[in-house]
Amino acid sequence: MYRKFDIHILGASAALPTSQRYTSSQLLHCHNKFFLADCGEGTQMQLRRFKLPMLKIDHIFISHLHGDHYLGLPGLLFTMHLLGRKKNLQIYAPAGLKEIIELQFAVSSLTPMFDIHFNELSEGREVIYEDNNISVTTLEMDHRLPTFGFLFKEKSPLRNIKKEFVLQHNIPQKLIKEIKAGDDYVDEQGKLYANHEITLPGYKARSYALCSDTAFTHKFLDQIQGVDLLYHEATFLKEMWEIAAAKKHSTTTEAAQIAHYAQVGKLLIGHISARYSDLEVLLQEAREIFPNTFLAEEGSVHQPGD
Amino acid sequence: MYRKFDIHILGASAALPTSQRYTSSQLLHCHNKFFLADCGEGTQMQLRRFKLPMLKIDHIFISHLHGDHYLGLPGLLFTMHLLGRKKNLQIYAPAGLKEIIELQFAVSSLTPMFDIHFNELSEGREVIYEDNNISVTTLEMDHRLPTFGFLFKEKSPLRNIKKEFVLQHNIPQKLIKEIKAGDDYVDEQGKLYANHEITLPGYKARSYALCSDTAFTHKFLDQIQGVDLLYHEATFLKEMWEIAAAKKHSTTTEAAQIAHYAQVGKLLIGHISARYSDLEVLLQEAREIFPNTFLAEEGSVHQPGD
Repeated sequence: MYRKFDIHILGASAALPTSQRYTSSQLLHCHNKFFLADCGEGTQMQLRRFKLPMLKIDHIFISHLHGDHYLGLPGLLFTMHLLGRKKNLQIYAPAGLKEIIELQFAVSSLTPMFDIHFNELSEGREVIYEDNNISVTTLEMDHRLPTFGFLFKEKSPLRNIKKEFVLQHNIPQKLIKEIKAGDDYVDEQGKLYANHEITLPGYKARSYALCSDTAFTHKFLDQIQGVDLLYHEATFLKEMWEIAAAKKHSTTTEAAQIAHYAQVGKLLIGHISARYSDLEVLLQEAREIFPNTFLAEEGSVHQPGD
Repeated sequence: MYRKFDIHILGASAALPTSQRYTSSQLLHCHNKFFLADCGEGTQMQLRRFKLPMLKIDHIFISHLHGDHYLGLPGLLFTMHLLGRKKNLQIYAPAGLKEIIELQFAVSSLTPMFDIHFNELSEGREVIYEDNNISVTTLEMDHRLPTFGFLFKEKSPLRNIKKEFVLQHNIPQKLIKEIKAGDDYVDEQGKLYANHEITLPGYKARSYALCSDTAFTHKFLDQIQGVDLLYHEATFLKEMWEIAAAKKHSTTTEAAQIAHYAQVGKLLIGHISARYSDLEVLLQEAREIFPNTFLAEEGSVHQPGD
């Protein structure tokens, strides 16, 4: 069964935007849900530019409170209000964001027409979101402020019953669900059919780890082991490793090393400093260590498990 | 003498931006100074897009605290800090902005490397800025929050001494300045030359009135009488006049009527609702009443007294 797991890059510049590159923001389309991860300045315009459904976003994850990761949020919330949103909105962010947003609404004399729930992220690894299809777990980054990455994991999908078996047997609807979930089947004559004989595996559960601003660190390496797609910041070229370390950012080769150690399927590098105009140079540096690397560029769409 | 008086439109959409139209922001290049008036989301990117000198802006005027007029300010200030700005910055805004900006710096654990002076705008008409060439006076708008327009007035320039007179007389340097300022001249023989005989007028002093969000009102009509260029918001088509009044905004024809009553040289309409994709229709409505009307469009540049 084909289920969406698309990562739309809205912004992937580092602290400074340029005229073409926006600060951090990604829209995840997982199954039938839309999740926003970070919300740099101009995110609402990027959502419009790429014709993505702003009002279907019900969950927003903010990695940390440097401006390039959240300054687009007040505008997005004001716009949702003006467009008549009524549905609750969940925001997951480190302490401090709630006060900023509430102050901005108060100063504007606006009361949003929808409830905003702030879920404060705290130290440690935590499952912060879960539904039937997906879970989101925090990853602890090593940065100048409390900073979180997010691990999006698809749950193991239901198995598919073999077509010929369904055609040969008149299986009650309620049993179909149980067989898909792994049960064996016993027919009216008492004959047992083992689950693996009558079903095929569903699609492979996929995973995406978003590692926002971080120094080179092994802190979360065990958590991202074997993920299908890893986004890792690569603010600088490798020659800048000392500055990267001082600013608690990573270089291209550091991002690639993490991808290599974690044996991920594919690496996406972003949060590239505005000082670089030719991003291919950064891509080549990362590919020397981890060949299956790609650039997170505004407007590009990526899938785990391609 | 040719002196710059350019108004660069960075954003002229109403509350909602679109993928192409940005919320309110204008950069004024007056003589050798750069003034920013309003700072909607994405202003720093528009400055880069149009290659305008972000770090030369020393004065920022914010009309009111609806998000579409100031949400680009935190990002602009963070960027100025990251680019190493050391010079003081003056911000003129209604009460409330200081707390928002200071909270955002505090939450980011950043102390800007430059002093930011908040000049709180208060009711009434006030000269809030003045130098040798220009003055800025507030205009009181009629809107849902305390809202200010800004009147930029060039000072009467110095007169030019006639070339032939300078060539015929050996005038000491210090007297030249006084003659340009209006003094008569007495030569060594005691002969008096009246100022109007020996000088020509300088260029005509120009003026620009920026009337941001406002209902149709005559409140500031006397102040903008005869200005060379008037920017007036025109959020809606004339058929929407009741909604405009309820929301304390203006229609195209209301903006044009103000231009007509104030006998301005030229009208610029902006802050047009994102619901309209064909802005020409709005322009035509305004021109029926005030023919010398133009659209404030992103990237366009306008001069008073053309």
